[in-house]
Amino acid sequence: MTDMAEMPPEPSGWLSDRELQHVRGELPILYVNAIPVRTDAAGEVTEVGLLLRADDDAISRALVAGRVLRHERIRDALIRNLEKDLGGVALPRIPSSPTPFAVAEYFPTEGFGAFHDSRQHAVALAFVVPVDGDCEPSQNALDIVWLSPEEAASEDVARDMTGGQHHLLRQALAHCGVLP
Amino acid sequence: MTDMAEMPPEPSGWLSDRELQHVRGELPILYVNAIPVRTDAAGEVTEVGLLLRADDDAISRALVAGRVLRHERIRDALIRNLEKDLGGVALPRIPSSPTPFAVAEYFPTEGFGAFHDSRQHAVALAFVVPVDGDCEPSQNALDIVWLSPEEAASEDVARDMTGGQHHLLRQALAHCGVLP
Amino acid sequence: MTDMAEMPPEPSGWLSDRELQHVRGELPILYVNAIPVRTDAAGEVTEVGLLLRADDDAISRALVAGRVLRHERIRDALIRNLEKDLGGVALPRIPSSPTPFAVAEYFPTEGFGAFHDSRQHAVALAFVVPVDGDCEPSQNALDIVWLSPEEAASEDVARDMTGGQHHLLRQALAHCGVLP
Amino acid sequence: MTDMAEMPPEPSGWLSDRELQHVRGELPILYVNAIPVRTDAAGEVTEVGLLLRADDDAISRALVAGRVLRHERIRDALIRNLEKDLGGVALPRIPSSPTPFAVAEYFPTEGFGAFHDSRQHAVALAFVVPVDGDCEPSQNALDIVWLSPEEAASEDVARDMTGGQHHLLRQALAHCGVLP
Repeated sequence: MTDMAEMPPEPSGWLSDRELQHVRGELPILYVNAIPVRTDAAGEVTEVGLLLRADDDAISRALVAGRVLRHERIRDALIRNLEKDLGGVALPRIPSSPTPFAVAEYFPTEGFGAFHDSRQHAVALAFVVPVDGDCEPSQNALDIVWLSPEEAASEDVARDMTGGQHHLLRQALAHCGVLP
Repeated sequence: MTDMAEMPPEPSGWLSDRELQHVRGELPILYVNAIPVRTDAAGEVTEVGLLLRADDDAISRALVAGRVLRHERIRDALIRNLEKDLGGVALPRIPSSPTPFAVAEYFPTEGFGAFHDSRQHAVALAFVVPVDGDCEPSQNALDIVWLSPEEAASEDVARDMTGGQHHLLRQALAHCGVLP
Repeated sequence: MTDMAEMPPEPSGWLSDRELQHVRGELPILYVNAIPVRTDAAGEVTEVGLLLRADDDAISRALVAGRVLRHERIRDALIRNLEKDLGGVALPRIPSSPTPFAVAEYFPTEGFGAFHDSRQHAVALAFVVPVDGDCEPSQNALDIVWLSPEEAASEDVARDMTGGQHHLLRQALAHCGVLP
Repeated sequence: MTDMAEMPPEPSGWLSDRELQHVRGELPILYVNAIPVRTDAAGEVTEVGLLLRADDDAISRALVAGRVLRHERIRDALIRNLEKDLGGVALPRIPSSPTPFAVAEYFPTEGFGAFHDSRQHAVALAFVVPVDGDCEPSQNALDIVWLSPEEAASEDVARDMTGGQHHLLRQALAHCGVLP
């Protein structure tokens, strides 16, 4: 209920749900996490985009996230998952360097590290992605909210995020030099 | 024959060989790659360590590499694989930041990207790791050779490496500011 | 009174105090900032070292900091300034990559950016530096205190730091994956 | 004749030429270096832009470069220098993170490190900057040429660059994962 696992179903690549269930017990699963941002003309982050989700009975805020499929480049996994969560006209600017600014290790055991995902051991390569176009929530999100860096780093927002993703959000703000 | 797949068998985690074979057809597999280096007192890289391997009928040079197991931290996967390839007294200094300096995407299709692994789609988080102690080749390597940055970046060495790993080696040298 | 300028006098290179005063009005001055850390065997940061200073009438906490001199490598400036602030047996492990994890821009105008130094426009290349040896405060510091990442990120510590250095400290914790 | 010093005169901030001459003998001078790139829709670098210059009697290729002025943010120094060298409609996308991918240390003593500038000790923060618009050479350059990553990394191009800038160019290609 409080992990990245709560993310909506997604194209499973060449895996049936049952197979995915099985390999999750065997191997770490590779993900991408993206933090969509608005920037000013000088490249400075002015706003951070968070997805608003209704899971079971609670509202939560989440980062863009999704699996990397077999034979898919990380760049293409980023594009596909940004499109899935922000729609087709968000115009994301995929970084020219494929190196993530951080790696988030989600463990199924709560308290083992900063990130938690009850379904699996997921390792997410995390990227800050400026988006220039219009973002519209997909069927999996109620809305996309844009927050200032100060709001995004607040305890209020941290409380609304699950699986430890507020840590990654703060890492992203620090990386961009806008952590309060 | 010329890919990271040539790496020796390793602890398979909770996977039998047959199971590993199976999931390799389904998902990208998470690896770590490590470039062991000697540094001087000012931290500058003076030598790079490469493994010497006898595969089938050819001698090749390779980076330290291995899978990340389920529920294993990247740090611990680094330690385990460095120990596997360099022995127990290499005294590696695992980086304080868990962010790789590069990500190598090995695809099973030759020519699709810079890295190739005929067995699987492997995504390797790559780290430069200073080692202070004695390194002794494990049963899987004939020897460990220490090269100057100039030698390591040479075409001769590139020819002896497989799966595109010479690209990653040069990325490491560039990252450390010692690419000729 | 509340800026990096409060740092003790240091070898002025080839500049008299009056000359330094003059060029500070003309050019950005290049600094290094270092965050000394203790790490465990897996490289994870367990403690962060802060200098305790008595400035005028207040006690403050500070990062290791100092100018880069003419014809001095950044690596050597790091070593010299770490020695100045932590003593000669701290055994710092200077990073193999000369790229800083962050750049702190200290402006003389308060409120113009996150960092402030009333004396000058200083641009500091920032590094996390594991230290293995004993640290003893130089004449310029009362003490060196070692804090857990949680303590280091606290509001209490932020209040004791000047010039915005608590931002850089939090960036360092985020970079190492230990920002609470 | 073969250093970054060959760069054309530029706005000297609050420094007369004579003053600049003077401080160059006293302090390291802070620069930015930029590598302009064209990227495809997935963010991958497809072309690298180099300035073509006629210095004295030789033609050379150069990166975008210029000083950081007093009280100028690095972001703004990047924009100003990109505009100076590529014109006003290049539409550079300044990175959201102010951390350089590399730092180039140009020393006045030839052979002391990889970078050389006979006029001064210059420390350049280096950034890869995707540009979407039209680039037109300023009065200081004969032309801007766009090369594939393979061409940019070639020995031919290295021979045409001065001050060791081909090292930085290759570091940039490595950082973007397109070093051959």
